[in-house]
Amino acid sequence: MVNKEEKMRHTLSHVLAAAVKELYPTTKFGIGPAIENGFYYDMDLGTEKVTEKELAKIEKKMRGILQRKFKMVKEEATRTEALNWAIEEGQELKKELIEELPESEQITFYSMVDGGGKILFKDLCKGPHVAESGEIGAFKLEKVAGAYWRGDEKREMLTRVYGVAFETQEELDAYIKRQEEAKARDHRKLGKELDLYTFSELVGAGLPMFTPRGTILRDLLADYSLGLRKRAGFERVWTPHITKVDLYKTSGHYAKFGDELFMVHSQVNGEEFALKPMNCPHHTQIFASRPRTYKEMPIRYMEPTTDYRDEKSGDLGGLSRVRSLTQDDSHVFCRTSQIKEEIKNLVGIVQKFYTSLEMSKLRARLSYRSDEDKYLGSKELWKMAQEKIREAAIENELDFFEAEGEAAFYGPKIDFMAEDAIGREHQVATIQLDFVQPERFGLEFTNEKGEKEQPVMIHHATLGSIERFMSVFIEHTAGWFPFWIAPEQVRVLTVNNKVAPYVKKICAELEKVVLEEPVENNKLRLTVDESDDSLGKKIRRAVALKVPVVLVVGEKDMEKGQVSVRLRDKEEVVKLKDLAIYFQKVK
Amino acid sequence: MVNKEEKMRHTLSHVLAAAVKELYPTTKFGIGPAIENGFYYDMDLGTEKVTEKELAKIEKKMRGILQRKFKMVKEEATRTEALNWAIEEGQELKKELIEELPESEQITFYSMVDGGGKILFKDLCKGPHVAESGEIGAFKLEKVAGAYWRGDEKREMLTRVYGVAFETQEELDAYIKRQEEAKARDHRKLGKELDLYTFSELVGAGLPMFTPRGTILRDLLADYSLGLRKRAGFERVWTPHITKVDLYKTSGHYAKFGDELFMVHSQVNGEEFALKPMNCPHHTQIFASRPRTYKEMPIRYMEPTTDYRDEKSGDLGGLSRVRSLTQDDSHVFCRTSQIKEEIKNLVGIVQKFYTSLEMSKLRARLSYRSDEDKYLGSKELWKMAQEKIREAAIENELDFFEAEGEAAFYGPKIDFMAEDAIGREHQVATIQLDFVQPERFGLEFTNEKGEKEQPVMIHHATLGSIERFMSVFIEHTAGWFPFWIAPEQVRVLTVNNKVAPYVKKICAELEKVVLEEPVENNKLRLTVDESDDSLGKKIRRAVALKVPVVLVVGEKDMEKGQVSVRLRDKEEVVKLKDLAIYFQKVK
Repeated sequence: MVNKEEKMRHTLSHVLAAAVKELYPTTKFGIGPAIENGFYYDMDLGTEKVTEKELAKIEKKMRGILQRKFKMVKEEATRTEALNWAIEEGQELKKELIEELPESEQITFYSMVDGGGKILFKDLCKGPHVAESGEIGAFKLEKVAGAYWRGDEKREMLTRVYGVAFETQEELDAYIKRQEEAKARDHRKLGKELDLYTFSELVGAGLPMFTPRGTILRDLLADYSLGLRKRAGFERVWTPHITKVDLYKTSGHYAKFGDELFMVHSQVNGEEFALKPMNCPHHTQIFASRPRTYKEMPIRYMEPTTDYRDEKSGDLGGLSRVRSLTQDDSHVFCRTSQIKEEIKNLVGIVQKFYTSLEMSKLRARLSYRSDEDKYLGSKELWKMAQEKIREAAIENELDFFEAEGEAAFYGPKIDFMAEDAIGREHQVATIQLDFVQPERFGLEFTNEKGEKEQPVMIHHATLGSIERFMSVFIEHTAGWFPFWIAPEQVRVLTVNNKVAPYVKKICAELEKVVLEEPVENNKLRLTVDESDDSLGKKIRRAVALKVPVVLVVGEKDMEKGQVSVRLRDKEEVVKLKDLAIYFQKVK
Repeated sequence: MVNKEEKMRHTLSHVLAAAVKELYPTTKFGIGPAIENGFYYDMDLGTEKVTEKELAKIEKKMRGILQRKFKMVKEEATRTEALNWAIEEGQELKKELIEELPESEQITFYSMVDGGGKILFKDLCKGPHVAESGEIGAFKLEKVAGAYWRGDEKREMLTRVYGVAFETQEELDAYIKRQEEAKARDHRKLGKELDLYTFSELVGAGLPMFTPRGTILRDLLADYSLGLRKRAGFERVWTPHITKVDLYKTSGHYAKFGDELFMVHSQVNGEEFALKPMNCPHHTQIFASRPRTYKEMPIRYMEPTTDYRDEKSGDLGGLSRVRSLTQDDSHVFCRTSQIKEEIKNLVGIVQKFYTSLEMSKLRARLSYRSDEDKYLGSKELWKMAQEKIREAAIENELDFFEAEGEAAFYGPKIDFMAEDAIGREHQVATIQLDFVQPERFGLEFTNEKGEKEQPVMIHHATLGSIERFMSVFIEHTAGWFPFWIAPEQVRVLTVNNKVAPYVKKICAELEKVVLEEPVENNKLRLTVDESDDSLGKKIRRAVALKVPVVLVVGEKDMEKGQVSVRLRDKEEVVKLKDLAIYFQKVK
């Protein structure tokens, strides 16, 4: 079912095309679909260039067309009629599309027809559309970009004009405001400003390197996530980043990942390996390394480790999509009777983790199989596994919805979506049931009766990809990280160098500060700026790096045995002797 | 210079051949060199098989030959004479060797000639040898193995008989005893018994996977090593495991590593990457990610990360030689004037680390360049760098020796050798000076005068390869790991199930135990064996896993509020209330 907003956005892509045609009559049109929050149209404008300025002109023309009150009129056509239309109109791209339509498909056109019966614009289109221009809400042209025709880099580069559209002006305004906020929070911009990570052309696209500041963030996020699981009985293991492909042929991943696998080649003897794109098959081999009994179950492994997936260069950007993705991965090997309890524990961990990062609004998607053949394992097993997942969602009172076709190839899963500070949803944690890999790897344990029994696997990551989560977290916090995780938590600024001995005393106090929540043994990360620069300059420098706590030390502070504390939203004075305790409460 | 022991060992290989020839006259001989601790001879025995039993027979024959008191007589020969000899004797392998000798080389034979002038055995040989049988000390045949002729797996498989030899019987006895000790400590045997790591055929040779117990060892060793550096101002960074080869072409590693590099291939667009065999080039890119000033120097990065080197399958065994080697790597970027202080700090770290692992006997090898052309950078730079290294060794009072030709291609280094519990030396830590990579990567910082200046790099690893070090550490400790690092530190054994409530109290006490040395926040790792098995069986199980502390809990202990502690070398009784303090002192 296509909803009204989508129909309206699709109709707007026609209005955009109509406006462009009036301004640039020789334009050849490609495709113009509705997309999330708006629409676009791909067009061959010949030698014409569209910039910000032309966008305004096109948008004005669109508003003019909308005032002409049209209806959307659908019309069926034979293949020959359609081709004749494309040839007459000089629409070569449309001609190509028509030629590729399957014989069985009914070809349709949509025309914008005004009150006087005049056709304002006619386009080859499957629809659906709104019935008439009056149903169109608020819109705005957004940007222009290049796009290869048919997404094929060997074909011509077209001009893609993007627009955004909502039913009401309020929604549109809210969206634009959110976009501006998002832009200010862009993790690629903040990543540079806060010196968190870097790329090098010598190393390659999609392969970020993390600076000391970024590494503190990475490590503390992983420590927190894995620390919660450690308390729940998970043990760390370690596996290499490469493997013979035999492992993935056995697991079933080889067929699934296909050319997303980075292949590794031995120059010495021609052996073929793959960089691991996930860790479950390796973990099965640790489970299988010795005989197991029911007394040991559940066995819970966790490993923060880096996987490699060969994403297309065009898809890479900042940390959202990388080729080297570090997962806080874990696998439970348990009995069928233990599934419920294990899922409950994991749900609790997810909720605790995201609540303490102030992303407590979590939705869960129960991801089921579709009718396609791409899933491994019997349908009965799937049915049972999906029921388990659903029961768990209900018993744990998750805010959930169900989605067919979103399952992993080996089993159904619960995918968690967390809402960030500006209302965007991000897919984060996952809990996945798997009856297939234990079978394919022949995993077993001895039960009470001395018989061999097959364990179930539960895959879980709390963060998912640490890199991707960092992109979310940087944007969620706008770079003002919570105190416990800020790479530099405290910066001491001196008003002049007379206070140097007093600064030593302050540092001695600060070195006593160790936070125990949410990660243990988290010692204060502190710097001192004793340079000869002005206090104003020093403060600006600290603020630019979003250091959450700045201590300003002047002679008056020294005399009074106090420190002037500047937090992001307030300033206060704290006695030197109370400093260590004070920091236990900073958020 | 060949020393007397080597000459004696070489002569023994001839005695071995003579004995074999007497026993199996049609034997064709390959080569028979002296090696560390002994000698071997590669021989084509036709259809004859040599086992333990035959070894004794051959050894007896050798002793008989030695009683016949011979001199080693050298004789020069022309190529034709030598070839005729080989043909007449049916020595085809020798013939092949002769044919391949360069024209310019003087061919020599050595004969064992007895008092009566009788030739006991004559062999094509460059020498040198001892003058006569009286100079031969104590020896023993050790084992038999297969070896391809010329090390080429396409050629015939020969029989290689190994012997050991020393000047005195005492030395030989000591060596044999050490070998037996080494066998009992073999980390491959202990790795399995103590459940530390595993291999899988599906994953591949040289790619160990670490179980929970092995991962605790790995992580604590790395935590300790990196923790020492953290206190010395090192900051963690993170880099991916792959890179475009451009990085190594710039650094100079591409030529150096050659086919030891695992090449990574994108199936999507054919891009070529390499798995990193070392980390310095990646770290230069973090240094180069923004402008640097002298105020920031030294900049110190560290990263525990896994490198990949394509070792030949035949060389792989346990953890000594692996394809996935995790390094506790670090790089200092500093000014020339800071080199001395930085090296001093690193030497201190190395000494502290190995002393606390009871491997305090450290020798340092100052590894210099040779006259070969394989080194990068000007000879003047090398001279200066080698002097810096030497000064550092003297100032830090290292027990050092100098070795030409052992340098890295980019600079000289200090390699540390640590002695283990049975007197074997292992290469462990390294400190390397590098003026070459900063130049090749164009690294720079702004000095006090506003000019660009080039930093020096100091490479350092305290452990080296964690996997290799683990193999050393497992054998050094024979699996009886120091208390702080033992994967399972304490096991509580119940005499019967009446003591269950008291065990809870004991566990509550033990959960308070946190060690702060040598790594911080090291919580007690504890298990309870409350099974119905007999106490004897429970104790045997704990001893088999070399759990350093076993607490036996019976009804008497419960009544008296005490615990019976079994350490490896003693037993004692500790009051429940003193338990937490008691564990602070266990070694």
